[in-house]
Parts: sequence; C-alpha cells; structure tokens
Amino acid sequence: MEYKIALIGCGNVGEGFLQILYEKAGWLKSQHNFEARVVAICDKFKGSLLLPEGIDLKKLLPLLAHQQRIDDYDPAQKKVQIDPLDMIENIEADIICELTPTDLKTGEPATSYIRKALRCGKHVVTSNKGPAALFYPELIKLARQNHVFLRVEGTVMSGTPVFSLFENGLSGNTVLSIRGILNGTTNFILSQMEEKNLSYEEALAEAQRLGYAEADPTADVEGFDALAKIMILASVIFDHPLKREEVERKGIIDIKSEDIRQALQKNQRIKLIAEIKNHSGQITARVGPQSLPITDPLARIMGVQNALVFNLNPLGQIMIQGPGAGKKETGYAILNDILTIHRNLINRQTHSK
Amino acid sequence: MEYKIALIGCGNVGEGFLQILYEKAGWLKSQHNFEARVVAICDKFKGSLLLPEGIDLKKLLPLLAHQQRIDDYDPAQKKVQIDPLDMIENIEADIICELTPTDLKTGEPATSYIRKALRCGKHVVTSNKGPAALFYPELIKLARQNHVFLRVEGTVMSGTPVFSLFENGLSGNTVLSIRGILNGTTNFILSQMEEKNLSYEEALAEAQRLGYAEADPTADVEGFDALAKIMILASVIFDHPLKREEVERKGIIDIKSEDIRQALQKNQRIKLIAEIKNHSGQITARVGPQSLPITDPLARIMGVQNALVFNLNPLGQIMIQGPGAGKKETGYAILNDILTIHRNLINRQTHSK
Repeated sequence: MEYKIALIGCGNVGEGFLQILYEKAGWLKSQHNFEARVVAICDKFKGSLLLPEGIDLKKLLPLLAHQQRIDDYDPAQKKVQIDPLDMIENIEADIICELTPTDLKTGEPATSYIRKALRCGKHVVTSNKGPAALFYPELIKLARQNHVFLRVEGTVMSGTPVFSLFENGLSGNTVLSIRGILNGTTNFILSQMEEKNLSYEEALAEAQRLGYAEADPTADVEGFDALAKIMILASVIFDHPLKREEVERKGIIDIKSEDIRQALQKNQRIKLIAEIKNHSGQITARVGPQSLPITDPLARIMGVQNALVFNLNPLGQIMIQGPGAGKKETGYAILNDILTIHRNLINRQTHSK
Repeated sequence: MEYKIALIGCGNVGEGFLQILYEKAGWLKSQHNFEARVVAICDKFKGSLLLPEGIDLKKLLPLLAHQQRIDDYDPAQKKVQIDPLDMIENIEADIICELTPTDLKTGEPATSYIRKALRCGKHVVTSNKGPAALFYPELIKLARQNHVFLRVEGTVMSGTPVFSLFENGLSGNTVLSIRGILNGTTNFILSQMEEKNLSYEEALAEAQRLGYAEADPTADVEGFDALAKIMILASVIFDHPLKREEVERKGIIDIKSEDIRQALQKNQRIKLIAEIKNHSGQITARVGPQSLPITDPLARIMGVQNALVFNLNPLGQIMIQGPGAGKKETGYAILNDILTIHRNLINRQTHSK
C-alpha cells in the first residue's frame, strides 16, 4: 500500500523521519508492504514544496543536511508563500505529519493544523507536545468522528514506545500509578553532577556544550517539559486530562552537589521524577526531584536515557527504558505511528475482501 | 462484543486467567466493550465441563482454589471422558485457550490441539512453549490461511509484553540483536548466591522452598527453558526458526560462589543470558552464563524479574523489564492476547459499517 504523506514543519524531527524513510524504503516495502510518497513539505522558515508525484528524498535530504531552504529543490516554487491551513485542506494526502515546534501555552498553530486535517478526513501523526498536552480529548474525539487516526507516540520518550506499549500490551490492566524519568536533559545534568562531581552550573554548561540543553534551559530544568509529558500521559493513559495548575511542579535548579553526595551516603540517588497516581479514580500528578533508594529501577537510569514504570493490576510492575530524545529517535516515532495506522488499515482491508 | 471461550488445560495459568476474567468482568465491559463467556474447560487431570450457556466463574473458582475436580461443578458431567480434539471440533467457541503443560521435545499434545482449532476457524491463544518453539511458522501460516489469530504472548516473560511490544512499538526497526534474562528461577538463584552469600546448592534449595524451582530443576538450571524462549523469539521476531541443536546452551550448575565473588571484584555480575544476533541476516543464538559489567542494564535485574534488551536500527537500545512467571502474570498474558484479537475484530467491524 502506498500512502501520500505531507509534513507541516521540517526541523530535526522531520529530517530524522525523512532520513529513515529514505534509508528503509526497500525494507519497509518488503517487510511491511508499506510505501510512502512525500507529496508536500511546508516549513515556516525553510519554505514549501508541493509535488503530487512525490519528492525525491535523495535530492532533498542533502539540502536539509546543509541547512538550505526546502524550496531550493524546485526553483519554480522558490519563495512561494503557502498557508499550511490551505495546504492541509487542498492537498491530496492520506497522512499529515504535524512536526512544528511545541508551544506549551497555546498549543498553536499546531492545534489548528491538526483540527483542520482531521476535519478533512486525514490521519494525523504528531510529535508536538502542545496539542497533545492541552487538547487531546477534543482532538481524539474529532479523529473518531471523522474515522481517521490521531497518534502522538513521539510526544513522550521520543521513539521509545509508550502509548503503543500501553494500548497493545498493557490494556487489560487498571493503571494504579506511573512514574518516570521523562526528561533526558535533567537526567544528564544530575548524572554528571554525581559521576564527575560537578556543580549544577558546570553540569548544565556541559549539557549545553553537547546540545542536550538549549541556550535557555528553562523548559527542561524547571520541569515544564516533564509537566507537558505528564499532562499527555494523563489524557492518553488515564483518560483524565489535567490542567497545568493541577500538577505540582518543581525543577532541579536548587539541587546542590552536597544534596547529591548526601543522598549517595544514604544509598539514594536524586532523580527528577514525573508521576501520576490513581487513587480509585482520583488522579493526582507531580513533577519534582526525589531521592530514590538505589534499588529503585528508576535510580539506575543514567545520562540522557528515559524510563517509565507502570504499576498495574493485575500485572504488577513493568518498566520500559530507552532514548528520550534525538533526531532519528523521534523521527522513528513518526514512522512507527504511520505503520500503526497502516496495520489497522490492512487489517480492515483483509476483512472486507 | 461477547466471545465464547474454551480452555484446554486448567492448571495455574488457566486458574489465573479465569480469576482475572471474573474480577475484571465489569471493567472489561465498560472499558473495552469486551465480554467473555467460558463455555468449556477440559483438563486431563481435573475433568471436563461443557456449558454452552456459560460457566459461572464465581462457582468454579473456589473448586480450583481448593484443588477439587472441575466436574464437581455439575454432577451430570462427573467423570465423563471428553477427547479435547473432539471438543475443539464440535464446540461453538470463538477462541480456544491452549493451556496444557509444555513438552519441549514433541510439542504434543498441544500442537495437535492448536492445529485442529485453527483448521476449525477458531482463534488460538497459548502459553505453551512447546508448539511455539517447535512449530510456530507452520501454525502461524495455518492461522492466516484460516483467517484467524494465533497468539503466544504468555510463552516468554509471562504477561510482560514482548511480542505485542515488538509488533506495535518496534516494528519499523531492523533488529540487530536481542539479549535477555528470560528465566526467573536461575536469576533468583544467582541473585541469592550474591546477596546472601549462598552456595549454588543452598540457593537452589531456597528457590525450591519458595516454589520458584521445581523438585527436578533441570529445565531451568540447565538452560532448557531459556533455550525454548530463544527458539520462540527467533521464530516470531526474526522470522527465522532455529533447531534446538543450533542454539549453544549452558546452564548455571557449574557456577560457584567464588565465581560470583570474583566477578563482583571486577565490578561485574554473572547472569544467565539468552541472546540472538543478526549478522546481516545470519542468525546465531546462545544461552549461557555471562559476566556483565555492572553498568549493563541486564546486570541490574535481580531476583525472579525478567528483562529483554532490543538493539535496533534506527531506534537504538530499548529494554523492557517485568515479571517472568506467575499464575496471575501468565493468566494476564492470555487475557491480553484475547483483547488484542478483540481490538482487531472491532477495527474490522467499525470499517464494514
């Protein structure tokens, strides 16, 4: 089966996704009977490209790698302004990949793009935390009404499967609680403070030097990124959307080397833990540093790794550990969500034969 | 949707499954629109029970808990001999749960039961390692030909999702290798030898006392159980069935306290590791004790826990950790496989409307 795919936003995640799509095209066809034709890419900063016959990724990827404009691909389309909303409405595409940058306050413009796509009967895959954290219940309802899929795997722990694990492998359980390390940057900083005996400021500088932390690290170190992920998990896994102000939030900026050392002396390790508890249907959530016994599986997650522990009835405790960020890792999440849609459509088709 | 379910074999796993089905009936209906009617149970030692209108689990479960015969439920059916093959052929059931004891040499009688059920157009769920290790390619082909599902989640790591994780969350990856701790008994023994400074014999006795090891512990401590799981993983995940003799196998019976101590001095820990490597399509597999650096995520899995690490292209390293055995844990695997079948059928139905 061939799918026509359009990308709104083409930064790191978009590039990672297209790279995988290019490198694995033959494998995806032979293993999954899956083919993708990228028919449009629309990026606020890099320009737009519309090619109903399909964009040649071999020609496009070097442009992205060299930070060139996307419309350098086709001189005829150079600097033609395209409104993403118009494009979503008019383009012949099966799946819209919404990959614009996250705005955690408004969820825009991504939420408007997603609403439009779903209303137009197009499947949507997104790695954007804004719409998923703020509007998931509305959007998933809209998707169902329009008989299309909306998938958000890339919003939490990048390509490490969280939602597909829950939906498929854990769905017969009541979830009593989930606890996780959902922000790689802060986990890297805390790990460096311990392993290299650095101060918070030194470890942050190291994270910035390696590209793990941004110049303005607020979203990570103040816990806002983990907060957004907790809001998404509350909506998707507990079917219980939370408002920002309903989640207790504390970052790691007050953690001192001394705190790390004292915890270690008690055989404990300080981690930024995001958690949701379900007390017989009453949902509470918080993000903050916790001093965990060294035997806690989350205490052993070091560096930029992420992990999530589910406490389940009847299954007990399950942990998934994997990458929490990265160009290819989040790009993979987009591919995985598309393959999930593909599998569902194949299953329907097999039956109607 | 209501499913008619028949159980062949009703030992620990069957009892665990029926318990969950009973306790979660209301929840399964409200959350998943799923209802189960258990129409038959057939156990070689405990007798048989056929009730097309459905067995009352509230009445049956106490019999199982008190080691009574199943046919004590209905005096009219007392000691009536039923051939499982006849039952599978004649009963009106949607799903057959094949839960008889594992025979790793022949896969029988389970394989014959599964073949018959699939040929009769019935979905099959099994926790039996024999058929999955020895005949998976044949059986899955038979399932597809008959437009039914065959699922084997409970054969590896009990209810901890391995196959559903792979199928749904990791399927866009090439699997470079997998490595795991797949036998809880041996991991418990090795953990006890380290933590309580016991000899192998003392730790084995402790495992037997707690019910983790059987009176004849050969299958676990000689690595045969892990070998069977590796054969299943090779078939299901690598689509590359392996013969028993193609897998190098070594157990833990030669491990001495001294070895454990020496490893620890080098910051290493001895674990019984089962692994499969994919060298550009050439598959090799082995089971044996390995001395792992303490930083290896598998080195940190203690006691009866199991864990599996996937090395993937492009996603990198993913680990799933959870229970590897247990009545409720494996019973949950049966439920989860049935819910997977249910979701697939719902998806088809939604479409044909």
